[in-house]
Amino acid sequence: MPITISVKTHTRIDMVDITSSVQNEISKAGVTDGICVVYVPHTTAGMTINEGADPAVCQDMIKKFTDLVPPDAGYRHMEGNSDSHIKTSMIGSSVTVIVEGGRLVLGTWQKIFFCEFDGPRSRKVYVTV
Amino acid sequence: MPITISVKTHTRIDMVDITSSVQNEISKAGVTDGICVVYVPHTTAGMTINEGADPAVCQDMIKKFTDLVPPDAGYRHMEGNSDSHIKTSMIGSSVTVIVEGGRLVLGTWQKIFFCEFDGPRSRKVYVTV
Amino acid sequence: MPITISVKTHTRIDMVDITSSVQNEISKAGVTDGICVVYVPHTTAGMTINEGADPAVCQDMIKKFTDLVPPDAGYRHMEGNSDSHIKTSMIGSSVTVIVEGGRLVLGTWQKIFFCEFDGPRSRKVYVTV
Repeated sequence: MPITISVKTHTRIDMVDITSSVQNEISKAGVTDGICVVYVPHTTAGMTINEGADPAVCQDMIKKFTDLVPPDAGYRHMEGNSDSHIKTSMIGSSVTVIVEGGRLVLGTWQKIFFCEFDGPRSRKVYVTV
Repeated sequence: MPITISVKTHTRIDMVDITSSVQNEISKAGVTDGICVVYVPHTTAGMTINEGADPAVCQDMIKKFTDLVPPDAGYRHMEGNSDSHIKTSMIGSSVTVIVEGGRLVLGTWQKIFFCEFDGPRSRKVYVTV
Repeated sequence: MPITISVKTHTRIDMVDITSSVQNEISKAGVTDGICVVYVPHTTAGMTINEGADPAVCQDMIKKFTDLVPPDAGYRHMEGNSDSHIKTSMIGSSVTVIVEGGRLVLGTWQKIFFCEFDGPRSRKVYVTV
């Protein structure tokens, strides 16, 4: 199995900053230069990169995604989480980040977020470099 | 040219599970470990990873994308498929999957879907490892 | 730092075709085969691949993204650009393109677009192969 990070989410829709966990794994792997793929093996959770300084950005994003793809909107899928699957495809299942000198090359305000769309749950994320 | 998979779509908006085709190409290429990029060279079709067990998930997704970006909504692009281009950018032109031991590392429910937004057509997908 | 391309945007929401700049950097780097990641280190701008022949496609896309995620819609984030952050996560922070024989393997109509969601600004994009 690839390097795995465990993520605990706390609400049905939740964004968890996992930047430092990803950086730790890269440091442990001893990789200096390359591309890092952070991949979610679930179908109701995804990955994104966005601002981590003000938590209101995540709150606004969660509200907008809920407005655009509300739960309980007459979906056919009987498990009741079609909105979670749709949000996952809108945000994407992975992000790719450049690594140089053993460090993630992120912009000043960028953080790597795990996006839970059907929590709270214990989830995992794969990291490969 | 990179490894090419042909995909036949059957309706204007269609999601086709190409997981086994992608796995076949990886097996043929003899690659054991790395990253697999599945790339769509079209501008009115994209790629996503989502649940493949219940076809209702794809049906719900197609309906939601159609609701959010309906055809014939006063677009300027004269070919009449602006909605297809917009859906493509929302879903993305490629997915990246980890490969280990010659196998795609997918989650239990994950399948790789070609997303047709302006079909039915004969399409192609590039796979590189 | 990775290879950096400077991009100047001219309106609040803007799509700039940077395909030839990316191709130039690949040619300069002398890489013949591999995967090219084009990465935006900002949190209010992203990347997409779409049609470059008719500028109306970009105009329609900009209008749709503005309709789906309008500015000034009661967001909590005080900087007034929550819509820009949300659009960025919808479109994504990077694109991945296959490189063969020193050339980007793009479809006939595909161009690589920098997507400005909070301009006009001077921006940068990282390219790695």
